[in-house]
Amino acid sequence: MAECSIGVGLMGIGTIGGGVARVLTQKASKLADESGCSLVLKKVLEKDISKYGSQGIDANLFTSSFEDIIGDPSINIVVELIGGEYPAFDFIKKSIIAGKCVVTANKEVLAKHGFELLKLARENGVDLRYEASVGGGIPLIAPFLYDLVANNILAVKGILNGTTNYILTRMAQEGLDFNIALKQAQKLGYAEANPASDVDGIDAAYKLAILATIGFGTEVVFNDVYHEGISKLKSCDFIYAREFGYSIKLLAIAKLVDGKIEARVHPVFISQDALLAKVDGVFNAVNIEGDLVGKLILYGRGAGADPTSSAVVADLVNIAQNLANGVKHLPKMLLNNSYQIKPMVDIETRYYIRLNAADQHGVLAQISKVLGDNLISIASVMQKETDVSNKTAEIVIMTHPAREGALQKALKQMEDLKVVKSIGNYIRVED
Amino acid sequence: MAECSIGVGLMGIGTIGGGVARVLTQKASKLADESGCSLVLKKVLEKDISKYGSQGIDANLFTSSFEDIIGDPSINIVVELIGGEYPAFDFIKKSIIAGKCVVTANKEVLAKHGFELLKLARENGVDLRYEASVGGGIPLIAPFLYDLVANNILAVKGILNGTTNYILTRMAQEGLDFNIALKQAQKLGYAEANPASDVDGIDAAYKLAILATIGFGTEVVFNDVYHEGISKLKSCDFIYAREFGYSIKLLAIAKLVDGKIEARVHPVFISQDALLAKVDGVFNAVNIEGDLVGKLILYGRGAGADPTSSAVVADLVNIAQNLANGVKHLPKMLLNNSYQIKPMVDIETRYYIRLNAADQHGVLAQISKVLGDNLISIASVMQKETDVSNKTAEIVIMTHPAREGALQKALKQMEDLKVVKSIGNYIRVED
Repeated sequence: MAECSIGVGLMGIGTIGGGVARVLTQKASKLADESGCSLVLKKVLEKDISKYGSQGIDANLFTSSFEDIIGDPSINIVVELIGGEYPAFDFIKKSIIAGKCVVTANKEVLAKHGFELLKLARENGVDLRYEASVGGGIPLIAPFLYDLVANNILAVKGILNGTTNYILTRMAQEGLDFNIALKQAQKLGYAEANPASDVDGIDAAYKLAILATIGFGTEVVFNDVYHEGISKLKSCDFIYAREFGYSIKLLAIAKLVDGKIEARVHPVFISQDALLAKVDGVFNAVNIEGDLVGKLILYGRGAGADPTSSAVVADLVNIAQNLANGVKHLPKMLLNNSYQIKPMVDIETRYYIRLNAADQHGVLAQISKVLGDNLISIASVMQKETDVSNKTAEIVIMTHPAREGALQKALKQMEDLKVVKSIGNYIRVED
Repeated sequence: MAECSIGVGLMGIGTIGGGVARVLTQKASKLADESGCSLVLKKVLEKDISKYGSQGIDANLFTSSFEDIIGDPSINIVVELIGGEYPAFDFIKKSIIAGKCVVTANKEVLAKHGFELLKLARENGVDLRYEASVGGGIPLIAPFLYDLVANNILAVKGILNGTTNYILTRMAQEGLDFNIALKQAQKLGYAEANPASDVDGIDAAYKLAILATIGFGTEVVFNDVYHEGISKLKSCDFIYAREFGYSIKLLAIAKLVDGKIEARVHPVFISQDALLAKVDGVFNAVNIEGDLVGKLILYGRGAGADPTSSAVVADLVNIAQNLANGVKHLPKMLLNNSYQIKPMVDIETRYYIRLNAADQHGVLAQISKVLGDNLISIASVMQKETDVSNKTAEIVIMTHPAREGALQKALKQMEDLKVVKSIGNYIRVED
């Protein structure tokens, strides 16, 4: 049916790239129906073809030179699935300047250079889409850009990293230690050999920067997002969380408070009744609050070849349809607000504190005094396991809302108390 | 900033219409930023202004004549929020023929005449959007039309009616009878004085027809959807459901089975662990299964002035943006499949059956024989409460998968058994 043809240049043929190539081939006829145009794979950029194999793609399409991609006039849309900041950023930039539309799943590039690239795309009259950069197959970018435009977005809270959610789920359900759960995630292919980007909250921070930017109409870059990982969590934290009625999740939180944006990724205590607390395994979910729509939750697979291909190919089809119809669609880039980013020390939240202290009279008085001196009031204290031989006890404190700066100061002062052996952990509570 | 102006004609100024008018006024500047064009309310059609009051709208804009709307050349987009089949259908049709784009929240018109209207809109070169017709503020139409285009949709299962979900939640949590829960819903404004459309599953069937059509690329109209309401449910059904590990929800189910579409709305037993089972109160949620994206759940407020306005105004903004940019966007209407609708008698599912029988030997044997004769095998049987004075007992049966036709025949035969006093209820199990 489709007589026109849109040329696609694919950069990167790893898990996601292979998935996209497969979908383009196997669903060629359906995609032509949807877009009104054939989507034809013209070239595939891959330095090391032996690394992934040809994935069933015609060997003649492969090239190891980026110049072959931007130099090919038959390529209308470049799909960047290399990942990482460089050379991906340069390749995207040069593709745009060469007048090609771009589809990317690159959260790092978007979180660091998104504004520059969107601006460049608009100047060059080409489209730039990045639905797959956040939440894999879950529609997240489009809802913000199109479906929720009538709303003032108040908050975005999400489980944006499947690897850490899988690890936390195993720790919560089976009492596993972090390192064991991590190893199992690696064994199953859910975590990489170097898991830092996932377990340190970096990956989620990239994604949050992207969502916060389009949600609040204010440029939020990776460096604006506080991030803290999950490696400090102990199995006892999960036990205590449950006793208080909470689950532990790595949450990416962006919200407007007093006219400033809070943007932070860290483990939280979240009520067991909250739907986000019930998101288990590698699934992602994002809770969006808008002044009109109220609470909206989008849940699905945040990673993997098929779900990510679903988003990448949708972007491709939607661009192809515009090209086929002669519609010049430019990426939306509405930075109509100029909220400040709230420094982490200024956020206010409740805290869970676990510490190891001498098992003797007057300890609680000293700890309470430090908290009180820093204007932190205690909601409840529990003395948990006592180590008789070491004469120490584990003390768990839940506070009322307090400033992060005050909490950090109090933690330092508590560490200096002779009766306090160590601060085991502290976790923010998200209501 | 926006120098161009798009004229809006609003038909119907009830709860939703009032909400839309409010958003257009209060957020005029934000909406102009988003669309690149001012959205100006030109006329409001309302027969009985005294019924709702002016809702803060300039009294001069009101008219009781539809001719004033289509006759006004300054109106580019007509928003239909009258509801019901007639005259809404005629008004939409005439607006399209008059060359006006249309935004509607009218699920009944879409479920009965959607194909005709979309075709007419395409022929007349105008856009027709209906995001608010299903799931209130939850983005549902756009995800199917744009974000999931690379997927073959396998199933759509949803809680699409907030009224019944509220009633079921009260029945489950507090053991209320249907009639009392309904009265409370009416008191709170969640149910209408005549609740038939909600409690009989009609409203959900309209919405399912719309989703099934765009999900499967096959025209599915209201009459294709089997619907059954919640009024037969008794509080004991909720107790037994819980004992078996299930919740009871009114589910709208459309799925491809053996190359045919099942489309049905009825109460189901759904595993307590399923996320849909945890959707309480007036919230809606839809579980979409695509071959690439896997399981996707979209959750939010399915009704109410603000959430519905969120969707209606988004449609308005997106049309306005196209008009402002000179882009002729036609509604997508891709009926590229021609699946048959599976007759209800041919569906296969597990069943819960509750019946009242004589409390005597041999009863179970007779019941089992009827089921066996109809090729229905029993997964478990429990004899529940015994009424000593009446010498009857309540018997609860869970079956293995069976054909609906066989089940209906077996129910009839069981009713004819002397030992069976009555069939209390039967509920399908959704896995």
